[in-house]
Amino acid sequence: MTDTTSEQTERKLLDELYADFEDAGLIPLWTQVDGLMPMSPQPTAVPHLWRWAELLPIAQRSGELVPVGRGGERRAMALSNPGFPGLPYATPTLWTAIQYLGPREVAPSHRHSQGAFRFVVEGEGVWTNVDGDAVAMRRGDLLLTPSWAFHEHQNVTDQPMAWLDGLDIPLVSKLDAGFFEFGPDELSTRETPERSRGERLWGHPGLRPIGRPDQPNSPLNAYRWEHTDAALTAQLELEQEGVPGVLEPGHAGVRFSNPTTGRDALVTMRTEMRRLRAGTRTAPVRTVGSAIWQVFEGEAVAHVGDKVFEIAKGDLFVVPSWCEVSLSARTQVDLFRFSDEPVYEALGLARTSRGELK
Amino acid sequence: MTDTTSEQTERKLLDELYADFEDAGLIPLWTQVDGLMPMSPQPTAVPHLWRWAELLPIAQRSGELVPVGRGGERRAMALSNPGFPGLPYATPTLWTAIQYLGPREVAPSHRHSQGAFRFVVEGEGVWTNVDGDAVAMRRGDLLLTPSWAFHEHQNVTDQPMAWLDGLDIPLVSKLDAGFFEFGPDELSTRETPERSRGERLWGHPGLRPIGRPDQPNSPLNAYRWEHTDAALTAQLELEQEGVPGVLEPGHAGVRFSNPTTGRDALVTMRTEMRRLRAGTRTAPVRTVGSAIWQVFEGEAVAHVGDKVFEIAKGDLFVVPSWCEVSLSARTQVDLFRFSDEPVYEALGLARTSRGELK
Amino acid sequence: MTDTTSEQTERKLLDELYADFEDAGLIPLWTQVDGLMPMSPQPTAVPHLWRWAELLPIAQRSGELVPVGRGGERRAMALSNPGFPGLPYATPTLWTAIQYLGPREVAPSHRHSQGAFRFVVEGEGVWTNVDGDAVAMRRGDLLLTPSWAFHEHQNVTDQPMAWLDGLDIPLVSKLDAGFFEFGPDELSTRETPERSRGERLWGHPGLRPIGRPDQPNSPLNAYRWEHTDAALTAQLELEQEGVPGVLEPGHAGVRFSNPTTGRDALVTMRTEMRRLRAGTRTAPVRTVGSAIWQVFEGEAVAHVGDKVFEIAKGDLFVVPSWCEVSLSARTQVDLFRFSDEPVYEALGLARTSRGELK
Amino acid sequence: MTDTTSEQTERKLLDELYADFEDAGLIPLWTQVDGLMPMSPQPTAVPHLWRWAELLPIAQRSGELVPVGRGGERRAMALSNPGFPGLPYATPTLWTAIQYLGPREVAPSHRHSQGAFRFVVEGEGVWTNVDGDAVAMRRGDLLLTPSWAFHEHQNVTDQPMAWLDGLDIPLVSKLDAGFFEFGPDELSTRETPERSRGERLWGHPGLRPIGRPDQPNSPLNAYRWEHTDAALTAQLELEQEGVPGVLEPGHAGVRFSNPTTGRDALVTMRTEMRRLRAGTRTAPVRTVGSAIWQVFEGEAVAHVGDKVFEIAKGDLFVVPSWCEVSLSARTQVDLFRFSDEPVYEALGLARTSRGELK
Repeated sequence: MTDTTSEQTERKLLDELYADFEDAGLIPLWTQVDGLMPMSPQPTAVPHLWRWAELLPIAQRSGELVPVGRGGERRAMALSNPGFPGLPYATPTLWTAIQYLGPREVAPSHRHSQGAFRFVVEGEGVWTNVDGDAVAMRRGDLLLTPSWAFHEHQNVTDQPMAWLDGLDIPLVSKLDAGFFEFGPDELSTRETPERSRGERLWGHPGLRPIGRPDQPNSPLNAYRWEHTDAALTAQLELEQEGVPGVLEPGHAGVRFSNPTTGRDALVTMRTEMRRLRAGTRTAPVRTVGSAIWQVFEGEAVAHVGDKVFEIAKGDLFVVPSWCEVSLSARTQVDLFRFSDEPVYEALGLARTSRGELK
Repeated sequence: MTDTTSEQTERKLLDELYADFEDAGLIPLWTQVDGLMPMSPQPTAVPHLWRWAELLPIAQRSGELVPVGRGGERRAMALSNPGFPGLPYATPTLWTAIQYLGPREVAPSHRHSQGAFRFVVEGEGVWTNVDGDAVAMRRGDLLLTPSWAFHEHQNVTDQPMAWLDGLDIPLVSKLDAGFFEFGPDELSTRETPERSRGERLWGHPGLRPIGRPDQPNSPLNAYRWEHTDAALTAQLELEQEGVPGVLEPGHAGVRFSNPTTGRDALVTMRTEMRRLRAGTRTAPVRTVGSAIWQVFEGEAVAHVGDKVFEIAKGDLFVVPSWCEVSLSARTQVDLFRFSDEPVYEALGLARTSRGELK
Repeated sequence: MTDTTSEQTERKLLDELYADFEDAGLIPLWTQVDGLMPMSPQPTAVPHLWRWAELLPIAQRSGELVPVGRGGERRAMALSNPGFPGLPYATPTLWTAIQYLGPREVAPSHRHSQGAFRFVVEGEGVWTNVDGDAVAMRRGDLLLTPSWAFHEHQNVTDQPMAWLDGLDIPLVSKLDAGFFEFGPDELSTRETPERSRGERLWGHPGLRPIGRPDQPNSPLNAYRWEHTDAALTAQLELEQEGVPGVLEPGHAGVRFSNPTTGRDALVTMRTEMRRLRAGTRTAPVRTVGSAIWQVFEGEAVAHVGDKVFEIAKGDLFVVPSWCEVSLSARTQVDLFRFSDEPVYEALGLARTSRGELK
Repeated sequence: MTDTTSEQTERKLLDELYADFEDAGLIPLWTQVDGLMPMSPQPTAVPHLWRWAELLPIAQRSGELVPVGRGGERRAMALSNPGFPGLPYATPTLWTAIQYLGPREVAPSHRHSQGAFRFVVEGEGVWTNVDGDAVAMRRGDLLLTPSWAFHEHQNVTDQPMAWLDGLDIPLVSKLDAGFFEFGPDELSTRETPERSRGERLWGHPGLRPIGRPDQPNSPLNAYRWEHTDAALTAQLELEQEGVPGVLEPGHAGVRFSNPTTGRDALVTMRTEMRRLRAGTRTAPVRTVGSAIWQVFEGEAVAHVGDKVFEIAKGDLFVVPSWCEVSLSARTQVDLFRFSDEPVYEALGLARTSRGELK
């Protein structure tokens, strides 16, 4: 089979056209459309599991070998999703890291556009100073350092401490929206109060200090485990009394919220705690947007897409966008979860699909 | 001086015109404008004081002589502002009453468009069932029974109990917006739990049960004194540490809020608790809208317009619209305050003027 | 039948109790509850009709006999609902008046908390200056003078002009929320532009001047008949093409809205124009809140509660709260309608019930 | 200088640690922080200019050589920012393309999560059917095809037509939020009405069809040049009358808005039209987020970062995040501008800095 002259001519014209596209800084849609606009989300991130039992020793060795300070500012080790080789991104929008502070160590002050929180899976003894307000960090607590708040950490004990950092770094990076500023070299405060000022002003259920305006991020900078635990316990007890409260049978959940608006504690990240009764299986759910879960206590099996993860205390796993997730609790299990869902809700891009319990 | 003919003619024509106005169902603005559109609010309500020491014995005598039940539904005695003779209105928008329930008595179930709350200045032993959820009433607590929620009261003790009722009855009446429905004759529940379901689900600082939607009125149906007291204490302590928190020097205040929105606990009424350090004088304030204050504990002097009230535990006073109010605390004093300010804010009619401390 | 001693004693005690109630400034609920909290709204206002053919001659006679000026400020004749004898209120919340300005007359500048609009059923030649912006008034136009905007009127022709004024005077009066201020004696402007500045900046469909903030009341101060007519015409045409658009078969309707928020043009009042195809009967509707309708063109029968009104051009009728209303169009008929519904929506008191078409 | 043993040991331990990081799926922050969290946005996108005089001939040649149809679905040629070699992205969030439809051609129906608009710099004769509503495309018009609306194009003339497409493809792709669906092969309608149903229902200034709910994207699917031009003309005229209206001296601007909310016409993209009087120089502005400008008519010089672009009709240029832009108008010049600013405002990441006029 040989080309006709007209076919040859057309091929030549097309070749010239594509060359001219390139010269003109143009790319034709018809050579691109599949990956660009898929029929449903085709995330580059993959479901993945990081085991606490592996992470913690590495964090400890870093504590011995790598100083914290004005270089990298933080001894934080980011979870790198295998879908993003070489990039410190857990998902396309979320940064997650183990941060480690040795005995008596200090991480100096800075602030940035990126919003951040800390979640403590074990340990205590570090205070995070947020705009000069010293916030104790203890097991089960969620601590906020919202966008553009100065923050620094100090370990006041002779024991090291490790915790989970969550930030919207990849999102802010993709959006070219990040500003960063170093704070003073000296700690803003050496106080180690039981309760922060934020908690003292805002940590009373349903009560607002008169005269304080609404804020986009929560002015309550610490959510204590004692309250989270009580709320989850109550939901499961109410379920047994036949009163609505849980998300689904055997599955309690609370969302950390901004008391000035009732919305998410942080503008760009949803933070939640879940508790499953032993034996509970959750219905499979797909959501647009990505999430990271960490086991706080207990044991379970997580089905994430086509992966099956046996998970226990401290273990972390990623659920990419539109990837089905369901959990089976071997024991009673508590899980911390955070996600980028507020971003999708704000932009009209949220979708959720709930499957049948299998 | 005598009228000319033309003056007589004109007068005659005017008389005919005014007669025709009346026949046509018209009223000319030029005969009306002063009272109708004053230069600033000229409330019919007046500043007034009701002493707890007088109210309580009358309530007790009512308890002995008047049964509670399907007639008036409630043994409630309304504060009648002297500006509204014969009308059970404390202000143009707010109803306030002492409600009294004898030992083992029950007030039957009903619901209505009017929003309501209870504030307990002393005593305990009554449970208010709100849509079947039993809510304990104790000293210092604020309890909500929002618009269209079924509610009933039962006294489970051998002691009578009196408390303060606040409702938007006059507002809803003026707006012709009220619906009312009787509930079942039998109590919905005889339970007397320490904490209501509303508290168990919603009474955790900054935590929301996942999956529960926003509501116009607060789903947290009880605000306990223990939390209110702690919040006020913290504000005054923070003030002494040099940290912002109080409304003005020596003057702490919390607003009861809806955890799903951060707004007022009830759509039409603002509810607050204030604490003044002994010796504090508050700056004079005028606000559009009316307020009622009740002393919870301590002694003070209230300047309200041109009145001066010596006030002590349980005493109630009314501040009409745009009437200047300031307080001087003889001892540390706690005051419950409620007002109709959310109405004015929603309608673009809010104004506040703060005077100099005298 | 004689009283026993105990009955006499009890009666005496009750008499003493009620006397003491009065002395203490208390009124018992159980003597009050019926009128205070009815099973459904029992408005004092009644359905009522005012005929344009009667109103206009009276307005004209007023123009000859009563000067306009610094006394009553406006030659406005208010519709007085027979339910409120002697009061210039059309409904519990709404003031409605015919305002009349003679040839070359001027009504001086003032401003007030009360929101206002003008609707022109016939005539032209008056300009309303709103904060110095001259707004032409012509047949079919809706003109706004929002809360606290200075406004004044001038008739630049040799013909008198009458129009409809709508204000929230009774609402603001009941709420003790009104402030009033006289403006300069001299007119702010003598300009008579075809289009006001408000229209030139804001009167382009879907377009906002960049940099102008949201406002609670609409910055578009004139809604011209040409646009209203076109919108109603389009809805009825679309209906005939089988495309949704009308409120119900044969019944088109537009709401005057605030382009900065999409909400009602005024915070406290809803303003709408309706058009019924000849022969259309609207389904009966009850709404909490009151409304006033004026026929702009055409003839219809209005059923309002148990009243039946034959209505034609300029006629005005009142629909009290929760009173059923339905219309039958004898010819194609256009009606201007305004109501206080935004108040009820803001306060969580809105309810509507749609009946079957009879 | 030779390494001591301890230095050698430490180096070895560090090497092992970094190897173990990699094995564990971890990346240390201290090796990453510069690019990850810059002091201010360091966009990968660069300022760039595409000349209409170059783009249009290439589009025409594509029209002759490449069929439109079920393959790529659209004959669209995307602007590829030199900062993203090989990627069809104008900025990190925005896709911009020239779309070209030959005489009598049809582009088949589909829908997708990505929001889209069309802006017409010249030509006419194509109708875009949006959910079955036929929308004419003419010079100066902005046409919307919001997220998840079916849309298709047909050219009803014997002339080709080219226009500008704007979509949030890169944003939705980065967020893994895209769904896509093919529509029927047959056109939903062959109608070619002068005005779309969307315009007939929603294209009246300040008027809303009663009963239509708020929508996140504008239901007005076409913004006609006639209105845009009139609004810009009015702003410049008002400026000359001394009345506020323009953005800055000689610089008028309108934003295309959603009449149900007053917000941007599309949830994720801001669309605006600007007009500069001849000789006007705009003050330099930096904004977080990226923008694309297209000259509609006239000539100007654009300073974008360190680039200087001489621009004329149809020319397109990109302003990356936080890159300073200012314009000098050689003639009166009209520019269409679109950006991703609503994304940053929704996420609390917006910042703007206005410089002095140089």
